[in-house]
Amino acid sequence: MRIDIISAVPSLLRGPLDDSIVLKAKEKGLVEIYVHDLRDHTENKHLKVDDYPYGGEPGMVLTAQPIFSCIEHLTSQRTYDEIIFTAADGGVFNQQEANALSLKKNIIILCGHYKGVDQRVRDALITKEYSIGDYVLSGGELPAMVIADALIRLLPGAIGDSGSALNDSFQDGLLEAPVYTRPGEYKGLKVPDVLLSGDHKKIESWKHEQSIQRTKERRKDLYEKFKKDY
Amino acid sequence: MRIDIISAVPSLLRGPLDDSIVLKAKEKGLVEIYVHDLRDHTENKHLKVDDYPYGGEPGMVLTAQPIFSCIEHLTSQRTYDEIIFTAADGGVFNQQEANALSLKKNIIILCGHYKGVDQRVRDALITKEYSIGDYVLSGGELPAMVIADALIRLLPGAIGDSGSALNDSFQDGLLEAPVYTRPGEYKGLKVPDVLLSGDHKKIESWKHEQSIQRTKERRKDLYEKFKKDY
Repeated sequence: MRIDIISAVPSLLRGPLDDSIVLKAKEKGLVEIYVHDLRDHTENKHLKVDDYPYGGEPGMVLTAQPIFSCIEHLTSQRTYDEIIFTAADGGVFNQQEANALSLKKNIIILCGHYKGVDQRVRDALITKEYSIGDYVLSGGELPAMVIADALIRLLPGAIGDSGSALNDSFQDGLLEAPVYTRPGEYKGLKVPDVLLSGDHKKIESWKHEQSIQRTKERRKDLYEKFKKDY
Repeated sequence: MRIDIISAVPSLLRGPLDDSIVLKAKEKGLVEIYVHDLRDHTENKHLKVDDYPYGGEPGMVLTAQPIFSCIEHLTSQRTYDEIIFTAADGGVFNQQEANALSLKKNIIILCGHYKGVDQRVRDALITKEYSIGDYVLSGGELPAMVIADALIRLLPGAIGDSGSALNDSFQDGLLEAPVYTRPGEYKGLKVPDVLLSGDHKKIESWKHEQSIQRTKERRKDLYEKFKKDY
């Protein structure tokens, strides 16, 4: 998989893309990530990539030209399956979307910044708009990394134990059961007996009950959907 | 505001915490951010901070001891308003939660990693558990930065124009209207006439209609809530 990320503040795109599971996936050749600086594509002589919005709103808006130039440059070199824009007013990004995107070959993620991007970019170039949640962030760089991370860990071979991704929260519509590790007792706090029982069937059934219970307590929306579907 | 972030992979916590709005907020003295490496707090002689889960599940679980030690060290030095854990099975983090948290003085954010953390940590120490969305990530570091970013931009003085945060998506329960910037025409694509009209009242009413329209098209859930509330 190839992911091209376009940003006005590419220095934000460090850390999460250079370590841990994403780093390992890059080293294993499962994914290539390229970061593009909008300033390398602006025709403005002061290297500006934003301007005031029409209509007197506060904040700054990314201009159309550098984004058109960068995306047209990329799409002239290869076919992209999706050109994604990260925006608070996009559609909801969730595990189903992550699963579907993880099967694509080439994607572009355009990071919004400041107050947003000129709507003509969204109308003419973007194929998918995602919001990672109902909150506002200072830019689209964190959402771009969230989307990249969610996809990359699904690529076969990206995480050590492929069983681990399958029993994640959301994959079966339920939250995960609590997990415990050694020691069996810490500061007087004990691991539930069933997990130490060695009885695999009993453990599985305990986990399933705990999953349902936790979903019911914490996420009524998911629980109602689960009850309807199963 | 003081934010302490605890992580098993602190190198992931770069980039987004060191640039742009967060950097400016730090420079202005609006926020202090401290990153703590769990490995500095483990009593394990091999510096291990994780172990296999009880019950035969795949994946690794962060052990209780280093987290207890780190959090007890912090809370012995000052009072914390919230001790937050980022987890796919937490409660939903949204703009209302961000608004409320932005008024706190000291918070700790514990990043989950691998398969999660020992449930005893969550039971004994954590005061709030947040999921930033219905998808699974390789760790809690991106969610911790998302939460920090959402809070920090709300601190008075963090973004240049305080009007900008107030008319964001979600603050009034609606998505934002489209934004446009110069030039008025690019590649034959035009800015809507109303935005060039100079008629402030007409512009405001156009923006409000567009906000409602966009919310209706993209987020039926928010739209239904908006209709009920207003």
